[in-house]
Amino acid sequence: MKQSDTTVRVRYKDTDQMGMAYYANYFVWFEVGRCEFFRDLEMSYKDMERSKIFLPVIEAFCKYKHPARYDDLLQITTRLSFLKNVKLGFHYEIFNKETDTLLVTGETVHAFVNQKGRPIVLRKQNPFFWRILQELNVTQLQHD
Amino acid sequence: MKQSDTTVRVRYKDTDQMGMAYYANYFVWFEVGRCEFFRDLEMSYKDMERSKIFLPVIEAFCKYKHPARYDDLLQITTRLSFLKNVKLGFHYEIFNKETDTLLVTGETVHAFVNQKGRPIVLRKQNPFFWRILQELNVTQLQHD
Amino acid sequence: MKQSDTTVRVRYKDTDQMGMAYYANYFVWFEVGRCEFFRDLEMSYKDMERSKIFLPVIEAFCKYKHPARYDDLLQITTRLSFLKNVKLGFHYEIFNKETDTLLVTGETVHAFVNQKGRPIVLRKQNPFFWRILQELNVTQLQHD
Amino acid sequence: MKQSDTTVRVRYKDTDQMGMAYYANYFVWFEVGRCEFFRDLEMSYKDMERSKIFLPVIEAFCKYKHPARYDDLLQITTRLSFLKNVKLGFHYEIFNKETDTLLVTGETVHAFVNQKGRPIVLRKQNPFFWRILQELNVTQLQHD
Repeated sequence: MKQSDTTVRVRYKDTDQMGMAYYANYFVWFEVGRCEFFRDLEMSYKDMERSKIFLPVIEAFCKYKHPARYDDLLQITTRLSFLKNVKLGFHYEIFNKETDTLLVTGETVHAFVNQKGRPIVLRKQNPFFWRILQELNVTQLQHD
Repeated sequence: MKQSDTTVRVRYKDTDQMGMAYYANYFVWFEVGRCEFFRDLEMSYKDMERSKIFLPVIEAFCKYKHPARYDDLLQITTRLSFLKNVKLGFHYEIFNKETDTLLVTGETVHAFVNQKGRPIVLRKQNPFFWRILQELNVTQLQHD
Repeated sequence: MKQSDTTVRVRYKDTDQMGMAYYANYFVWFEVGRCEFFRDLEMSYKDMERSKIFLPVIEAFCKYKHPARYDDLLQITTRLSFLKNVKLGFHYEIFNKETDTLLVTGETVHAFVNQKGRPIVLRKQNPFFWRILQELNVTQLQHD
Repeated sequence: MKQSDTTVRVRYKDTDQMGMAYYANYFVWFEVGRCEFFRDLEMSYKDMERSKIFLPVIEAFCKYKHPARYDDLLQITTRLSFLKNVKLGFHYEIFNKETDTLLVTGETVHAFVNQKGRPIVLRKQNPFFWRILQELNVTQLQHD
């Protein structure tokens, strides 16, 4: 797997009075993207939290090129951008699926923490998850 | 105390492409109203959850008369509508504070439950909170 | 068509610190339900707004039976509950699709208005949309 | 004016099942910050839109240091970070007002566009708004 693709439809709720999707919604769609990313790897984020590993966001960025509008079908493309002992990064692209226009690109960085919010080393805490991500990371680097 | 009053301002985020506040936001403002209601009684909802009493919503209703728009200053008026052993109800009115127009009226009903979501009898679980609410309920009935 | 079915997945964003979906989100999912309802009738809500017919919500109700949780797949079932000259109503049921548990039931009532928010008679404004809904309404009544 | 300060309280709606404010909310609070920033300059964003000047976000960034939690009172500090002919930037800091802890820092960049989303030169379109921002920008630079 090089990347994970999923779709969302822009809801009325997502629009604002400028007639486009409000800017903070893209970060919610990024969340949808990384949730599906984990599911595609057969290590759902829900399971990760069950095993007491949490991935709070420590940095988030979005660059807006074209607006999404009500009822647009969006494609969210999610890739691992880097993997380190204590954190990992995702890169996102959101497209209008009908016109194939790139609407936004974005990044999020996540720490690995335990239930108390303390940093953990994923490789030690859950070698299984670590290996899956590690293999993906290597594959990614070879592709890039 | 007969009722609790608080204000919120309509955010850009709250608007939709019809140029008015999206209908689900009023339920968020109701939450702001009841949060301040508890604070006015000096029994914050945060403290209630700390004492392992939760009040999930079991019914919610809203009747929309006039739209709220971007940057409007809204007044939320919250009153206890009823109090029973295992549940309580709130009544809300939201006004445009500048024009004094009544925009919506609403109701929510909440169960008293413990951390596991099991029903509890508030009077037994926390006689202190119960008495405060009970006194308010009696006062309310006398006013109505 | 007797009813429209669509699915949504509970996002992390939808959860609250009680570990369940926040109560106002169900109204957003109702919106998703009625959006798909119109699409199933081949008269998208987007097209309706393009023809200058708007359906603001004038009443909304939800009864909560069981909580939705993070990553749950929900099925939203939407039916026309009534149709009148100047307004219409929808009835919703949201199920946990995996366990087939009924989580909530709800209702929304919508006015037919023009771009200025003035009431309109749908039958006159857009006989085409009116007929589609009218036929559905008759079918519904026969089924009920 | 060097900066604009305003407060918001974390709503139950803003929390997620990690027990902290969901990461996308900070961008909504940034919006609250810049709305009050404009109000403090006596050039409300609402008025700006009325004069057909819109400021869609073209870049947004947030760095998360400490979590905000339910019922926390937050202070949002907003400053102009740069001003150019066709865009401007804001810098934000959000503090826990009770503990005075810095929770997040952030940036947004906005284009000046007209109702059709076409870029405009603010100085030409509305010299009055431009001068206010320009003076502030100079003051800012002197302070920095």
